[in-house]
Amino acid sequence: MNIRFFNAKILLLRERKGRMPKQGGSPELFEIAEGELWVRGSRIVYIGNGTDTGRIAGEDGKAGRGLSWDREFDAEGNLLIPGFKNAHTHTAMTFLRSLADDLPLQEWLNTQVFPKEALLTHEDIYHLCRLGIMEYLTSGITANFDMYFAPLPGAHASADCGFRTVFTSGLNNFCQSLPEVEELYHRIRGLSELTGFVMGFHAEYTTSLPLMEGLSALAVRVKSPVWFHNAETAREVAECKRRWGKTPTALAEALGMYTYGGGGYHCIYLEDGDFEIFKKRGLYAVTNPASNLKLASGIAPVKRFLEEGIPVAIGTDGPASNNCLDMFREMFLVSGLAKVKEQDAACVPAEEVLYMATTGGARAMGLFDCDCLAEGKLADLVLLDLKQPNMQPENHLVRNIVYSGSKQNVLMTMINGEIRYERLHFLIGADPAEVYRRANEIIGRMKE
Amino acid sequence: MNIRFFNAKILLLRERKGRMPKQGGSPELFEIAEGELWVRGSRIVYIGNGTDTGRIAGEDGKAGRGLSWDREFDAEGNLLIPGFKNAHTHTAMTFLRSLADDLPLQEWLNTQVFPKEALLTHEDIYHLCRLGIMEYLTSGITANFDMYFAPLPGAHASADCGFRTVFTSGLNNFCQSLPEVEELYHRIRGLSELTGFVMGFHAEYTTSLPLMEGLSALAVRVKSPVWFHNAETAREVAECKRRWGKTPTALAEALGMYTYGGGGYHCIYLEDGDFEIFKKRGLYAVTNPASNLKLASGIAPVKRFLEEGIPVAIGTDGPASNNCLDMFREMFLVSGLAKVKEQDAACVPAEEVLYMATTGGARAMGLFDCDCLAEGKLADLVLLDLKQPNMQPENHLVRNIVYSGSKQNVLMTMINGEIRYERLHFLIGADPAEVYRRANEIIGRMKE
Repeated sequence: MNIRFFNAKILLLRERKGRMPKQGGSPELFEIAEGELWVRGSRIVYIGNGTDTGRIAGEDGKAGRGLSWDREFDAEGNLLIPGFKNAHTHTAMTFLRSLADDLPLQEWLNTQVFPKEALLTHEDIYHLCRLGIMEYLTSGITANFDMYFAPLPGAHASADCGFRTVFTSGLNNFCQSLPEVEELYHRIRGLSELTGFVMGFHAEYTTSLPLMEGLSALAVRVKSPVWFHNAETAREVAECKRRWGKTPTALAEALGMYTYGGGGYHCIYLEDGDFEIFKKRGLYAVTNPASNLKLASGIAPVKRFLEEGIPVAIGTDGPASNNCLDMFREMFLVSGLAKVKEQDAACVPAEEVLYMATTGGARAMGLFDCDCLAEGKLADLVLLDLKQPNMQPENHLVRNIVYSGSKQNVLMTMINGEIRYERLHFLIGADPAEVYRRANEIIGRMKE
Repeated sequence: MNIRFFNAKILLLRERKGRMPKQGGSPELFEIAEGELWVRGSRIVYIGNGTDTGRIAGEDGKAGRGLSWDREFDAEGNLLIPGFKNAHTHTAMTFLRSLADDLPLQEWLNTQVFPKEALLTHEDIYHLCRLGIMEYLTSGITANFDMYFAPLPGAHASADCGFRTVFTSGLNNFCQSLPEVEELYHRIRGLSELTGFVMGFHAEYTTSLPLMEGLSALAVRVKSPVWFHNAETAREVAECKRRWGKTPTALAEALGMYTYGGGGYHCIYLEDGDFEIFKKRGLYAVTNPASNLKLASGIAPVKRFLEEGIPVAIGTDGPASNNCLDMFREMFLVSGLAKVKEQDAACVPAEEVLYMATTGGARAMGLFDCDCLAEGKLADLVLLDLKQPNMQPENHLVRNIVYSGSKQNVLMTMINGEIRYERLHFLIGADPAEVYRRANEIIGRMKE
């Protein structure tokens, strides 16, 4: 769509000498501009105070010509920010929300998660992913990085809803084969401009050596990064070392997994050598704080990631273990848990966390084209309501977002230049009541 | 007002042999009824399926006569719950939100909090408390337990907004005297049916022995419980033991503070003997998890509180250290932090946490008349929107509230039978824009 936002505050990455800021450096990673932001089609074409719009080409390609607007949107002094990127999740698990809480991990997996997932049809997964996408939109999340045993119905849900998703294969001993992964890679990348795919496997403890070797070779052949659940629990790392004499990170490095980069989900129990591999390969650490609390897994060393220059992104993990898909809660936790873990109230400040939730997440997922608000970037953005008590006074807007922000502040969520959510209304080609009915029907069927 | 809610789900405390459930016992503390809830004046007069309303007296006092309604409210299948009770906060500190984050505790207090608080007028405090009350309403909080150096303007704000507040004196070496505390006790209790007052002092490390002794005598004389910041940091406890050879809890017990009960805020570093005193005296532990993270104070032993039968309530602490006033975030943290601290994903389940946030908080504050939804209780209640993606599917509504709930689910907040917030509109006799303007003006003046 062609949309002109005016009367807006606009969150910009603070450029340093023409380069994007490096995480872990200056605490002031953002600045706030005031003025207009123009979207043409799927992209941001103008950000400024409205006095220099003559340099923007019109529809006839000539500079200085006006665009015709589908909508002129008065932001009323509210704040446009880049959409949040949910860098690790299993969206279809919405059906398990609140079904199996307050259980130890193994009991949770074996008595609740696995038996019920085995009953899902592809149609079920499609509907459950739509429910998750709706929840992302309410939280200002414009893209997710999704691992599931059957990603294709999720890819159709994203394409149909107009939501951006990068999938990663959940290859392991029980689901997906190497030929299936390769087929998924091509099908999902070709399905829509909104769907991507990179190589992944579930985890070392669920995946045989031949499968890991095969995936590594496949990733090198198609030049893909590789992702997997890495060092989520202390037991996982200890057992991996007993089996292979190496941590999961060192094993993946030895197998050539990281030839084209990638990263790890959770990354709580990394060891010194793992940090060196992350730095050498430019790997991303995705932190999942709410899930790590709820499953009693631990607290990730986010302060050290920043100190060592390892880029960080944030994920909700799946709704069965979180149980909600809310980037505001995750952002507070990333900072708060680091502070209490390190006994250092000054560490992991708000600016770093907002950077992780937006720019960091986008780059982890390979979405360099929607990592910030700038002319030429894809229009994946969110309008935050500042006229609510939790955002007042306006002493520091970035801190307000990270420490006080809430889904309730999300007025509008736009993806690829299309408004998909506005003031509690979903614009995704689906009736919310029908999506809720389907989700209840799916889990109800399993309880019979 | 006389209001009839129909088509409602209604969260009820599960009665056991005619008695209220004991915390730490059965995990099923609540049940969900479906039907109607009637409010007459300030009280709930009927809860049921609508077939037995003949037993309710009409306005002429005769049973079976209809009431005249100011409003008949179709809840559309959504859920009525008792209002959340914010059991520890410093509401007026809204002006410091996001001003001094990511600082070590002492630097935060000495360079930011104390110098700026010294510049506040009583009129400032009144406006800043209204801002906090608005935020409480958005989060379904119907009462707060407030400590501030100047509580009277806050009491006027609560009375004027129609908000319920129990104040506690913030007596210490730098503010309030014993005569002032006694005067505040009587004035605030007499100000409005919505304002209460119990005895308190800031903390052992800020209060001289003669002041503590005097407060103890005053509390005994007026038969008041006593409250203070207790065992918030390890250093505080160590220094108290060095000074007095006792923990703060043991010192308060030795001084006779707990003759009429009371409790502690934070309660992170309690020792074995302290647990015994809490049990013997029936004291409440108020936990403040977000503030304890953000100031790197620690994680409270909530699992042990439950195991030992010590009643627990939940508070946000003040907006300078949290930074928001959101009971949903606190509830998730109470459970999540206990799980990771104890390495036990099964501990502190959702039912216990919702009980703390509602019934536990009310009883800690002495508000036994609005501790649950039941006929005869005060109508302090909240309508939660279940028709949003974070509350679907409806596998377990209590877990949905605690683990996935959000301020966005708060459709309506009622206090003392009056609707004070409904779908983003505030009904508190104040213009939100004016409240925001005042808050920005107050902090702006201090930055000059």
